[in-house]
Amino acid sequence: MTHGKLLPSMFIGIQGKDIISFGAGQHDLPPPKEVFSCLSTYKDFKYGLIAGNINLREALAEKYKGFAQDNFVITNGASEALDLAFRAIGKPKDKILLHVPYYYSYKPLVEMNHLIPDYVKTNKGKIDVDDFEKKVHGAKAVLINSPSNPTGRIQDIKTLKFIEKITKDLEIPLISDEVYKDLIYERENYMLSGKHVVTINSFSKTFAMCGFRVGYLFSNDKSIVDDVIKIKTHTSMNTSILAQEMAYHATKVSKDYINAQVKIWKSRRDLIYKSMLDLGLDVWRPEGAFYVFPKVKKPRDFVWNMFKKHKVITYLGEWFGDSDRVRFSYALDVEKIEEGMKRVKKYLDEN
Amino acid sequence: MTHGKLLPSMFIGIQGKDIISFGAGQHDLPPPKEVFSCLSTYKDFKYGLIAGNINLREALAEKYKGFAQDNFVITNGASEALDLAFRAIGKPKDKILLHVPYYYSYKPLVEMNHLIPDYVKTNKGKIDVDDFEKKVHGAKAVLINSPSNPTGRIQDIKTLKFIEKITKDLEIPLISDEVYKDLIYERENYMLSGKHVVTINSFSKTFAMCGFRVGYLFSNDKSIVDDVIKIKTHTSMNTSILAQEMAYHATKVSKDYINAQVKIWKSRRDLIYKSMLDLGLDVWRPEGAFYVFPKVKKPRDFVWNMFKKHKVITYLGEWFGDSDRVRFSYALDVEKIEEGMKRVKKYLDEN
Repeated sequence: MTHGKLLPSMFIGIQGKDIISFGAGQHDLPPPKEVFSCLSTYKDFKYGLIAGNINLREALAEKYKGFAQDNFVITNGASEALDLAFRAIGKPKDKILLHVPYYYSYKPLVEMNHLIPDYVKTNKGKIDVDDFEKKVHGAKAVLINSPSNPTGRIQDIKTLKFIEKITKDLEIPLISDEVYKDLIYERENYMLSGKHVVTINSFSKTFAMCGFRVGYLFSNDKSIVDDVIKIKTHTSMNTSILAQEMAYHATKVSKDYINAQVKIWKSRRDLIYKSMLDLGLDVWRPEGAFYVFPKVKKPRDFVWNMFKKHKVITYLGEWFGDSDRVRFSYALDVEKIEEGMKRVKKYLDEN
Repeated sequence: MTHGKLLPSMFIGIQGKDIISFGAGQHDLPPPKEVFSCLSTYKDFKYGLIAGNINLREALAEKYKGFAQDNFVITNGASEALDLAFRAIGKPKDKILLHVPYYYSYKPLVEMNHLIPDYVKTNKGKIDVDDFEKKVHGAKAVLINSPSNPTGRIQDIKTLKFIEKITKDLEIPLISDEVYKDLIYERENYMLSGKHVVTINSFSKTFAMCGFRVGYLFSNDKSIVDDVIKIKTHTSMNTSILAQEMAYHATKVSKDYINAQVKIWKSRRDLIYKSMLDLGLDVWRPEGAFYVFPKVKKPRDFVWNMFKKHKVITYLGEWFGDSDRVRFSYALDVEKIEEGMKRVKKYLDEN
């Protein structure tokens, strides 16, 4: 079967009874009920502050020690936070250092801001520190994503500390996309820190709030925060006030909610990782997030035919900078993962 | 009193008991009750389609004859729609033609996308057609805003037809920001149209939904629509699904709601315009939107002192490309307009 240009936008938001989607990284399980509880009496409608609702920023400042509410900007998801960070930090032709494989929006975001991506090698998803040290010189900013989308791998704490220090010494802004920080199965998150760090996070992954689009960035570098606010004043103004109110209620949810989620993801991780090993796939053990990134033969045919013939959505590795692999999100219940993997087995047996 | 750098972001979202804000163009009157009615049973949480919820796009396609749902993209307010349009259409150093005075975000949006603004002269807010004809050659795109923020003036239908035709003949995309199209006191809106037109609108002004941030763009040029979707996939993903659902309910509201609003704005317009004439201010009669743009002496001192000494927020004309004037939004009840104008009189008497 022939296929045209495959793009992530072909699959985002696609739902159907028979479709098994290992595509978008979105939860099947709903957000905590507290997120909806504020809706029935909600009556505000005016513009909010560009930086975000004060109650939400105060709640975040309580969560992250060493930060005040005016270190935060609430954004339309982590996507907008990243876009704003690049717009605030970069001038055309500046070099931005990414590690590859990378989340599929990184390269287009860098390029549509007229910046130039450069790539640090990884070994089974782990950053090659020597390569990093070589390439960091001359970078305008570095973007780190641990746990990683699409690999599900986390960076060693030693590596993170090295990156934190060398970027500090070189005075290079370090953008840390930690949207999966609460979904690590191996250890606690190591939060990159220092005045040169801009941390990006979101309510999408921790609280299953993808569709509402509430992310945030924060930094002790007030000049970056202020520049982001100045840009956002024109590009989108305040993030939707009601979505922010829902996020505020999420900050008040007991830690038990997150612990229960992590337990569920971990058992799904175990299931899909074992299934892939059983199928003989070359795959790295996911340590966080909810992605697994196996090698397959002819990935473009795989993604196209799995969708067209087997109604299984997977994402093409080349969107993430690795043309040998495909990404599976395992944000699905066990039954669907099992059915999906049966269809994958069928495809592999036939091809 | 000395003052530092005055910026719109200093005033947006500022509220206070004694403050009279002629600042942001935001309603004092609430949205139609239908907008809130969907909230109590709302349960969705997943990513939506990047282009926007289908029910909302279908409702818009019903409203605008000659357009189908896939001609629309739902955005985080008209601000994001404009930003995306510039990103889709422009390459660095392309020239974008604006008419001055312009909405304060236009120039920064053009410049932060590395495009170059050029300005058509106006006479009392009306486009100078000869100047337009001279400057349109070599423009990558033209942006028209009628009714205008900050002047409240509408362009003559003859002028709009001329602009529509010359840009069509020259194959120059014509971006039409019609967010105030439902708030015209003199005649019906003339919608710019043709395959080269990209229309921008929002639920903020017609339905008092500023804080929720739901805008949209639409065009019969599918290549621009597709490029916008590709960009938005990375810069913010779907617009908040719940805000879109609220907007969907707004599309079902009776036309009586809008008629009643227009009646209210018209009486406020009459009041503030007369007050300004009574104060002897040089002012153009507003024909739409809810702004009036009088000339004042030393506008920077005016804006600073009116805020600091008299707790009245006004916006500086130079943000809009006219350093002789200040902008008043009259989205306020009659009592507040009267109290605000008393304070203006006091200031003018003392200065």
